Amino acid sequence: MEGMDHLAHERNKTEFDVDAMKIVWAGSRHAFELSDRMARLVASDPAFRKDDRTRLGRKGILRLTEEEAGQLRNFVDEPSFTDLHWGMFVPAIKGQGTDEQQQKWLPLAYKMQIIGCYAQTELGHGSNVQGLETTATFDPDTDEFVIHSPTLTSSKWWPGGLGKISTHAIVYARLITNGQEHGVHGFIVQLRSLDDHMPLPGITIGDIGMKFGNGAYNTMDNGVLKFDHIRIPRNQMLMRVLQVTREGKCVQSNVPRQLIYGTMVFVRQTIVADASTALSRAVCIATRYSAVRRQFGSQDGGMETQVIDYKTQQSRLFPLLASAYAFRFVGEWLKWLYMDVTQRLQAKDFSTLPEAHACTAGLKSLTTTATADAIEECRKLCGGHGYLCASGLPELFAVYVPACTYEGDNVVLLLQVARFLMKTDLLHCCCDVQRAEDWLKPGVVLEAFEARSARMCVACAKNLSKFENPEDGFAELSADLVEAAVAHCQLIVVSKFIDKLQQDIPGKGVKQQLQNLCYIYVVNLVHKYLGDFLSTGCITPKQASLANDQLRSLYSQIRPNAIALVDAFNYTDHYLGSVLGRSDGNVYPKLYEEAWKDPLNDSVVPDGYHEYVHPMLKQQLRNARL
Amino acid sequence: MEGMDHLAHERNKTEFDVDAMKIVWAGSRHAFELSDRMARLVASDPAFRKDDRTRLGRKGILRLTEEEAGQLRNFVDEPSFTDLHWGMFVPAIKGQGTDEQQQKWLPLAYKMQIIGCYAQTELGHGSNVQGLETTATFDPDTDEFVIHSPTLTSSKWWPGGLGKISTHAIVYARLITNGQEHGVHGFIVQLRSLDDHMPLPGITIGDIGMKFGNGAYNTMDNGVLKFDHIRIPRNQMLMRVLQVTREGKCVQSNVPRQLIYGTMVFVRQTIVADASTALSRAVCIATRYSAVRRQFGSQDGGMETQVIDYKTQQSRLFPLLASAYAFRFVGEWLKWLYMDVTQRLQAKDFSTLPEAHACTAGLKSLTTTATADAIEECRKLCGGHGYLCASGLPELFAVYVPACTYEGDNVVLLLQVARFLMKTDLLHCCCDVQRAEDWLKPGVVLEAFEARSARMCVACAKNLSKFENPEDGFAELSADLVEAAVAHCQLIVVSKFIDKLQQDIPGKGVKQQLQNLCYIYVVNLVHKYLGDFLSTGCITPKQASLANDQLRSLYSQIRPNAIALVDAFNYTDHYLGSVLGRSDGNVYPKLYEEAWKDPLNDSVVPDGYHEYVHPMLKQQLRNARL
Ligand SMILES: Cc1cc2nc3c(=O)[nH]c(=O)nc-3n(C[C@H](O)[C@H](O)[C@H](O)COP(=O)(O)OP(=O)(O)OC[C@H]3O[C@@H](n4cnc5c(N)ncnc54)[C@H](O)[C@@H]3O)c2cc1C
Ligand SMILES: Cc1cc2nc3c(=O)[nH]c(=O)nc-3n(C[C@H](O)[C@H](O)[C@H](O)COP(=O)(O)OP(=O)(O)OC[C@H]3O[C@@H](n4cnc5c(N)ncnc54)[C@H](O)[C@@H]3O)c2cc1C
Ligand SMILES: [Ca+2]
Repeated sequence: MEGMDHLAHERNKTEFDVDAMKIVWAGSRHAFELSDRMARLVASDPAFRKDDRTRLGRKGILRLTEEEAGQLRNFVDEPSFTDLHWGMFVPAIKGQGTDEQQQKWLPLAYKMQIIGCYAQTELGHGSNVQGLETTATFDPDTDEFVIHSPTLTSSKWWPGGLGKISTHAIVYARLITNGQEHGVHGFIVQLRSLDDHMPLPGITIGDIGMKFGNGAYNTMDNGVLKFDHIRIPRNQMLMRVLQVTREGKCVQSNVPRQLIYGTMVFVRQTIVADASTALSRAVCIATRYSAVRRQFGSQDGGMETQVIDYKTQQSRLFPLLASAYAFRFVGEWLKWLYMDVTQRLQAKDFSTLPEAHACTAGLKSLTTTATADAIEECRKLCGGHGYLCASGLPELFAVYVPACTYEGDNVVLLLQVARFLMKTDLLHCCCDVQRAEDWLKPGVVLEAFEARSARMCVACAKNLSKFENPEDGFAELSADLVEAAVAHCQLIVVSKFIDKLQQDIPGKGVKQQLQNLCYIYVVNLVHKYLGDFLSTGCITPKQASLANDQLRSLYSQIRPNAIALVDAFNYTDHYLGSVLGRSDGNVYPKLYEEAWKDPLNDSVVPDGYHEYVHPMLKQQLRNARL
Repeated sequence: MEGMDHLAHERNKTEFDVDAMKIVWAGSRHAFELSDRMARLVASDPAFRKDDRTRLGRKGILRLTEEEAGQLRNFVDEPSFTDLHWGMFVPAIKGQGTDEQQQKWLPLAYKMQIIGCYAQTELGHGSNVQGLETTATFDPDTDEFVIHSPTLTSSKWWPGGLGKISTHAIVYARLITNGQEHGVHGFIVQLRSLDDHMPLPGITIGDIGMKFGNGAYNTMDNGVLKFDHIRIPRNQMLMRVLQVTREGKCVQSNVPRQLIYGTMVFVRQTIVADASTALSRAVCIATRYSAVRRQFGSQDGGMETQVIDYKTQQSRLFPLLASAYAFRFVGEWLKWLYMDVTQRLQAKDFSTLPEAHACTAGLKSLTTTATADAIEECRKLCGGHGYLCASGLPELFAVYVPACTYEGDNVVLLLQVARFLMKTDLLHCCCDVQRAEDWLKPGVVLEAFEARSARMCVACAKNLSKFENPEDGFAELSADLVEAAVAHCQLIVVSKFIDKLQQDIPGKGVKQQLQNLCYIYVVNLVHKYLGDFLSTGCITPKQASLANDQLRSLYSQIRPNAIALVDAFNYTDHYLGSVLGRSDGNVYPKLYEEAWKDPLNDSVVPDGYHEYVHPMLKQQLRNARL
């Protein structure tokens, strides 16, 4: 069995050039080659072993992180304190620090002579950053800030890397000078001694405890932090935008505040890209296993039906496959948008920033919610075996879901999009579908999605206008507004996917497959959000029923290419970390092998048998049931 | 802070008699008093401690089970091998064993002198029971059956209690006598020595490894089992329905096969009841925390807004609260249905069995899917803190989700309902909503739900009729059929909730609250499945928009009673196992306290600091990033 490809019969059905698709997925030949080489390297090195993660205790889990610290970060497939060091600590200094501050701190951070985290959220405040309670009071006598946690709820809570590892933090606190408040700002604070790693006097630090899953996010030391009047020099406030003078006066610099939004656009754009990665990974596992798994339908002793051939399985799985591609392409576009905004900012053109900001916020929300749901659906698509950690899906879900919460709670973000939409002008149009095939016309589809989004906005705007106070209206109608925001974000994803299809895409059959995926994504949304489309009169019930017909036909067209389409993600078995998703489809023997590794199987007779089980069987235990 | 009720201001708003509601929820005063007494007992006994479960390794987790074995099972809040002993092993003998078999085996099982499990599923077959590969070949020479696992995929896989504890199993295997196959039947097989617990010769047993979550289902020893030609006496085949004679002839008994369905109806009815328990538990946590959590909206230094007052929070939370009640009442009805069917069966009246069977299958699917999704939504409703194990929600999700898979994969079950529906006669009608208040009329609502369900069925039937071979049609249209099945099951839940309201319900304001909950459940479904209602022409877009208005008004009405409505579940803090869901609302200090219990906080400087972190900071590590 070893070495044999149990999915060869599937791969033989492929109607397109998989290698060409791999390049489309990766974004470029160069990106493909780089990541392919790295992935193979990592897969072959025992230092990156991860199959035993769910069986380790909390201490064992965190230890792994440290071991791998200096190594190829991208391929260490787990959250780690270095994420926040590189992903938030360094960018915060870059974005909010003055030139001198950058010169002083960045080299230390780059060489990891200090390790930093990003300490914004508190026990009592997350979404509402302006409500943070930690104070930074300027003391003109000593030219220092006094950082203090005045209440229990002001304890910093959640920062990744804080609990056990970081030596420094960017701490967000309310600035107070001369008895006056000046809003929330960032401060560089040393937390631990660089000699013995002990917290400095007046600082209490700990880990906030276990999170969802076995391994999952528990490789990260999310932490708690309390300050008892800690003093830092004045020049450790990040002063690019606002400066505090020797006398304690606040002076606005000439750097526009909006620059800070740029960092947010950057981080969220990364999250959209990650969504497509996590989703494609889950889809890869579920698709391969659905082709391996057979259940029912055996006629006269022949093979049973592969579950991937059941229409219900297809109608659950293929839209997720299509979404993986859709999110990939909208992620590419966001990356471009970020670069465009950055260039404009440098040229002092802030005109596109509000839209870019709303776009990334909305797409962060849309793609992470969809991905979290999709991973769980993929787990269910694997039946009972999906519930085993060996399937890789439980941990993938557990490690992924906080993306719906961090960097902006998804509902709060949609409300921001809605606010932006209510300021925009809206247009009207109507749907022109007469036959099922008409659902495959880009113009027709775009019109329907534009009309739906626009009309939902208009309806909200109309209802809003009935309120005397617009804020009351916004609050009262916020559930409807969120739905309008979702419709808007889906329109973006759809239009970017359609844009992608206008490009020149080499490789036999590659474009045809992408076209099918695009319309599966589109028509499935029409079906799933049918209420929106019908109630706004964008389509008719007849057109809805044609959409359904078209969807079935698209599923049949994608079916023979399903395995090849997930092969195109080019994930190694090591990266997937799933017995069910093995590239060779050799699921059952490997599942069987895997079971014996559980610590419970160290002994045939379980620990505790003599104390508890034996006496019960021999009726020496008094309180057996009955 | 200790002893203070941080939710008193919420409880003061209550508009109904909570004690009376507690009795409605429990089902009767007697049921309330019993469970109340038990819950308090358990909460006060250290033997039932469960707060450290997520921090224990796999061995520590299973150990708990054994320790608590003989004790108050219902309040041991975790899966345990005794579940299968009492829930499947004993009922299987009762349902499928002959009188003699029952006389021999039941007393042993009742006294737990033997411990049994239910070994049906194999590595290769779950949903398709008829495809099981284990064989039971009759050997007339010795009057024995030879139980054998002919392939790797025929290994039993998943049975709870099998891995480490059970001494016996009901093993399902293909019966072969005189070279002929006679379908799949159950056999009582001894697995382990009653003296030293070693597996008997020819038997391989192990645990199948870690499952989703930290604690969760890992308290259960789901197992793997292989037979190498194991011999058991002929009288250990369960022969109530089919007998094998001394000569190896198969003789159908006069007991109707349908009796076996009765057991299935029983088990699934329990699962529906459990759904409402799990859902109410999650809702209780999310509701209380939403009243404690404040974020944004502070005006001139006053308190911030409780997040439960945001309409988006309400539109996500309150339908789940309503569902908890809806599932409770449909569960009560199912229990009645089961007793009714049982009585009829005894009187040889099989007329209601197919409908009862379809009903329970559909409701098992509907309620478990909705509950799994709802628990995760409740977790998200708690923002970042919901991601901590201390919230109780991650583990509740992880332990609950397999209910969507075991006792019948939820999609496979819906397909069975659809099959039943396609055999039924259908009726027509039309919706009569003119003002938002009309959505509160039972007759109007029922008509809309009946029409939607009926028309979706009719549409499916019409499309089916276009296929020459009905089986091909069923396969091709199965995604639509599943949607029709869901519509049918929702109709059942809605109509049972409305029935409940026709009863006499004592207690000030209790009925009013139940009415509000019922219509939140109903109108939210209309909103969520709007596409169904509109595309079948059951309601108009205008009526849909009135439904939305009504929903908002219902949310406002339920809001002041939200905390009291979850208090009515009467869950102890011990049972909830959630810092966020504490009855006194004293969340923050307790969350803070809880963090310090993580093993990582045993030492201030983490293990591994000297090996990994210190050398990196001091630049003695070569391959730091950059
Ligand atoms: C794994 C993980 C890692 C993290 N890492 C870091 C880190 O490194 N550094 C750091 O500083 N923080 C970190 N955080 C914290 C994270 O940024 C916050 O949890 C996040 O911003 C959400 O805020 P919250 O928890 O206060 O949610 P809340 O705002 O309390 O949300 C609770 C509920 O209220 C609702 N709600 C809140 N406000 C509104 C509103 N105005 N209108 C309608 N509904 C509303 C939300 O939708 C949600 O349903 C991390 C969190 C997690 C889970
Ligand atoms: C926690 C847990 C405890 C369990 N305990 C026990 C136990 O004590 N004893 C025991 O014997 N078993 C037990 N099981 C096994 C359980 O009963 C099976 O996993 C369950 O019946 C589902 O079957 P499966 O795993 O074969 O799923 P599959 O049938 O392989 O499902 C895979 C996918 O195929 C789809 N599919 C399958 N057939 C069809 C079809 N005809 N049409 C359309 N789609 C289809 C499903 O919808 C699903 O998406 C347990 C399982 C779990 C997770
Ligand atoms: Ca690691």
